[in-house]
Amino acid sequence: MPDTPLLDTVAFPADTRGFSVAQLRQLADEVRTETIDAVSVTGGHLGAGLGVVELTVALHHVFETPKDILIWDVGHQCYPHKILTGRRDRIRTLRQGGGLSGFTKRAESDYDPFGAAHASTSISAALGFAAARDQKKSGNKVVAVIGDGSMSAGMAYEAMNNAAETTGQLTVILNDNDMSIAPPVGGMSAYLAKLVSGGAYQNMRRFGKKMAEHLPRPFRDAARKAEEYTRGMVTGGTFFEELGFYYVGPIDGHDMDVLVPVLKNAAAITDRPVLVHVVTQKGKGYAPAENSADKYHGVVKFDVVSGKQSKSISNAPSYTKVFGTELIKRAERDPSIVAITAAMPGGTGVDLFGQAFPDRTFDVGIAEQHAVTFAAGLAADGMKPFAAIYSTFLQRGYDQVVHDVAIQSLPVRFALDRAGLVGADGPTHAGSFDIGYLGALPGMVLMAASDEAELAGMIATSLEIDDRPSAFRYPRGDGVGVEIPELAAPFEIGKGRIVREGTTVAILSLGTRLQESLKAAEALAARGVSATVADARFAKPLDEDMILRLAREHEALITVEEGAMGGFGGFVLQMLAEKGALDAGLKVRTLHLPDVFQDQDKPETMYAQAGLNAEHIAATALTALGVDAASAKARA
Amino acid sequence: MPDTPLLDTVAFPADTRGFSVAQLRQLADEVRTETIDAVSVTGGHLGAGLGVVELTVALHHVFETPKDILIWDVGHQCYPHKILTGRRDRIRTLRQGGGLSGFTKRAESDYDPFGAAHASTSISAALGFAAARDQKKSGNKVVAVIGDGSMSAGMAYEAMNNAAETTGQLTVILNDNDMSIAPPVGGMSAYLAKLVSGGAYQNMRRFGKKMAEHLPRPFRDAARKAEEYTRGMVTGGTFFEELGFYYVGPIDGHDMDVLVPVLKNAAAITDRPVLVHVVTQKGKGYAPAENSADKYHGVVKFDVVSGKQSKSISNAPSYTKVFGTELIKRAERDPSIVAITAAMPGGTGVDLFGQAFPDRTFDVGIAEQHAVTFAAGLAADGMKPFAAIYSTFLQRGYDQVVHDVAIQSLPVRFALDRAGLVGADGPTHAGSFDIGYLGALPGMVLMAASDEAELAGMIATSLEIDDRPSAFRYPRGDGVGVEIPELAAPFEIGKGRIVREGTTVAILSLGTRLQESLKAAEALAARGVSATVADARFAKPLDEDMILRLAREHEALITVEEGAMGGFGGFVLQMLAEKGALDAGLKVRTLHLPDVFQDQDKPETMYAQAGLNAEHIAATALTALGVDAASAKARA
Repeated sequence: MPDTPLLDTVAFPADTRGFSVAQLRQLADEVRTETIDAVSVTGGHLGAGLGVVELTVALHHVFETPKDILIWDVGHQCYPHKILTGRRDRIRTLRQGGGLSGFTKRAESDYDPFGAAHASTSISAALGFAAARDQKKSGNKVVAVIGDGSMSAGMAYEAMNNAAETTGQLTVILNDNDMSIAPPVGGMSAYLAKLVSGGAYQNMRRFGKKMAEHLPRPFRDAARKAEEYTRGMVTGGTFFEELGFYYVGPIDGHDMDVLVPVLKNAAAITDRPVLVHVVTQKGKGYAPAENSADKYHGVVKFDVVSGKQSKSISNAPSYTKVFGTELIKRAERDPSIVAITAAMPGGTGVDLFGQAFPDRTFDVGIAEQHAVTFAAGLAADGMKPFAAIYSTFLQRGYDQVVHDVAIQSLPVRFALDRAGLVGADGPTHAGSFDIGYLGALPGMVLMAASDEAELAGMIATSLEIDDRPSAFRYPRGDGVGVEIPELAAPFEIGKGRIVREGTTVAILSLGTRLQESLKAAEALAARGVSATVADARFAKPLDEDMILRLAREHEALITVEEGAMGGFGGFVLQMLAEKGALDAGLKVRTLHLPDVFQDQDKPETMYAQAGLNAEHIAATALTALGVDAASAKARA
Repeated sequence: MPDTPLLDTVAFPADTRGFSVAQLRQLADEVRTETIDAVSVTGGHLGAGLGVVELTVALHHVFETPKDILIWDVGHQCYPHKILTGRRDRIRTLRQGGGLSGFTKRAESDYDPFGAAHASTSISAALGFAAARDQKKSGNKVVAVIGDGSMSAGMAYEAMNNAAETTGQLTVILNDNDMSIAPPVGGMSAYLAKLVSGGAYQNMRRFGKKMAEHLPRPFRDAARKAEEYTRGMVTGGTFFEELGFYYVGPIDGHDMDVLVPVLKNAAAITDRPVLVHVVTQKGKGYAPAENSADKYHGVVKFDVVSGKQSKSISNAPSYTKVFGTELIKRAERDPSIVAITAAMPGGTGVDLFGQAFPDRTFDVGIAEQHAVTFAAGLAADGMKPFAAIYSTFLQRGYDQVVHDVAIQSLPVRFALDRAGLVGADGPTHAGSFDIGYLGALPGMVLMAASDEAELAGMIATSLEIDDRPSAFRYPRGDGVGVEIPELAAPFEIGKGRIVREGTTVAILSLGTRLQESLKAAEALAARGVSATVADARFAKPLDEDMILRLAREHEALITVEEGAMGGFGGFVLQMLAEKGALDAGLKVRTLHLPDVFQDQDKPETMYAQAGLNAEHIAATALTALGVDAASAKARA
């Protein structure tokens, strides 16, 4: 454990309020050491937290948290914040089952007034707190900390557009490290880079403390309209000023001598929102992170001295890699294929595609709404766009999927990575709802891959679908190790496959629970119950012939999916009801994710909690058949 | 029919390419007259179209549509465009069943390359077309026309943020009439107002044509970096310049002498996106519209001479008005109630609330993402926010409902107006999917009102739910005329009600199909079949006791809802399956919206097409029971 004498005296932020700037500097150093050591044990988001150590210490020193509201955008940079807010004793349980969340979380602490994980929500939430404060005249302050990458999302702009009219005091810290998960894109990014490279910031760095003493003066000037405009020119902050913010910066986010006085002055402005532009370095203060291309954005366990991460070796490629690789194969044969992602190039395999076809790759930044409609425009003009977006993030573009893609029946192909439960990132990142929210859309073709060879086949299938949208979902993590054909053949639309023939119970699986379904069939066989196992492949259109046959020829039918209620199981039941296939009785059960938001844990543990493993599938079948009353108890 | 000699010679835009500016002026006058006359017959969106008559004529004159891509944002201003693009012969069928759509629509014309209806999609779509053009080297130009109101949406910002990096030629016309459906809000609006009130625009108006000749010069200057910055200062266009656009304007959008040369010059810029800031007047050229507060945004049939609209008289208040009125009653007793809407104050009844409680009313502009998370912030600090958003527009805030409201279990109350089919606005405005996409979320309480008194009860109910989100949906249009209690009592959570007791078939209705369900029961009684009718009230949590009793005590169970598949019917079936209530056989059918996007028509006609009227419900029951094989044929 690192030596942290000053941090050991800090149980809560109030303990830092009397600290000198020198003490705050020391505290920051100790928090950094503690953060590195903790994450070396747990894995997690390291680079972002290291970049805001000084900022975290300064914010808790200047603002009276938790009475003053401090909202971290995304929340993956909050480990230093957790260390300082009563959670240091559990910091080595980060992202583990039963441990601290890897993001801010209301249920965890009064110092987390608003949780996050998806980007760009903080200013909207802060404005809600500010409006509540104004209604209740409670007089507290409200602070949002948002990264430059999050600024590419429309949501942040919507909030900024509303800020000046809605509230008096609001402090927005723009944490500019020129890097979200991947290097940011777009006009805003270029604009911020220009600000940082401009004279004001360079002067600031040179004169340090002297400038900090100088800066506050204009704040006190009430009649500052003209001057402001001049200052806007010099620093270039007019973009934010036009939206009604008072812009301050850029300042060095690692220099406590600058941070503390500037934040104090910003906090004193209560009649108008202030944007403080703070420049930080992702991974700051830990050489292996600073020297790494991704600044240790997300790491597994590592050795603190060497920085060497203990990556496990897998026997199968990840679904993500399979997607990237297969799409490259197809694009070599078809020049109309293009790939779109929204700040997830590495997470979706679009980085591989981009290396092969840079001109046919579009990373639009954190901007899912734009990504979807941009893809729709490409499709409308005859291109074959693949929009690779995590299931959970496609929620950001749902209206665009409905309004711009589905209603117009445009052949956008959605590659939904991270479908189902995702493990350490917890409920905010689970891809739970896409089967329902996409499957309800007229014309949509919706597939789920049961292994990596099936994923390759679904890419081929979606290429054939040129008159309407299609989507295929697949989980986070590695495939099962099956061989992938050199060039996978497309599937017949709306046709599933029987994987194992049986007589008494039919297990109809959509997605990678197929492996568990097959194990369940083995277990049932051991109990003398013969099970058919089918891979549905399509949640829409359903393979009506196959499913009706399963219903007709078996006593029980169990559907299994890695998604919420109202999805595949609901669609199957509605079809069976419409066809009268339930009229004479069918022991049908739909297994799906439970109707709760599951906290983070290992994926296999989460699926066990969800009741979606082989033993639950088998027990459900036995109970439905009335074979084993004891199984029912075991399941309960 | 109006006298339109020049317009009569124009079948397609190509016919205008040789016109002089004087002829274009005359053409615009005639298109205006034709538009007014057509809408006087059909009703529809008038004000927006009148504001862009000159712009429409000028765009089709300058750009080579349909080879050049012209995308209208929202599309409700497209009637002049339709008149000029081969659809004049059908212009008096606008928004009628079987007639022209009230928006742009790909299926309707090659001159509608990308349809719309929801705001703020045009720049994203245009970038898609531009990227396709660049891939295919097809050399066509791409133009998007977007209103200032649409600029408040984050999606427009996301697209602008991507424009400069993504493409060369792109012309964005900012159609600034300082008014979307309602007066716009926010920093962007104030900024645009400042531009228009500034010296450059005033000079422009004064010098008209002279200035237009002067403007083009800087375009030709390749090394214009420094000059641009100076010009940005003068006209204030730095906001757009910072995002990488070349900003031109503001210019008078009704002055053909300015419009044509400026558009020609903008079209000539092919190395960088251009934003042309055009100032127009909503309702321009028709006195009754100009003099009306809403500029005849949406009208019913009217008399052209007097402008008098032939509004029908209703016996019952609209659901929208009931919501506004009831919320006021509650807010008088509870100071923590606040209302949020996203540019729909009139359409949601929040305008009434705003008159009573201006300080407790927040119209955030077209910004549903922000609206939802802003409401979540208010709820997190102890307020009782009602977010009043049309069902179809809440799709824009879906991720925020999941991530910021549901996962945090915050008591935001969603008032979902326009649920179900909406008539003349067609498929883009139908509220079809909310039951599924909200009902899948853990913890959500989801209600649907069967009449206006039930709506009042649901508002009361949602006020009682203080530990998790709730939503209640209700249709566009008038209530059924039932009495509303002075202060409605809250309902027990998750409890439905039996409306009519019977023995053989149970009809379980969610929402305003209850009236049709009761009529169906009458029809069944006439055929000797005794029907129970239940009002589910809650799609989540389901009234399991009641539904299981209905299943147990009846031979058949028919669910009815004004929503898509995967919604209420799916939830009911999954619950029944889980409880084993289908094991022994139940003739169960789920009636829901059909799996197609239905074109506009009268709501009652659309529901008939959907198979959701009394006769279909009765026929479904008879067929399920095997009572009447003929009924099956009739239904088919």
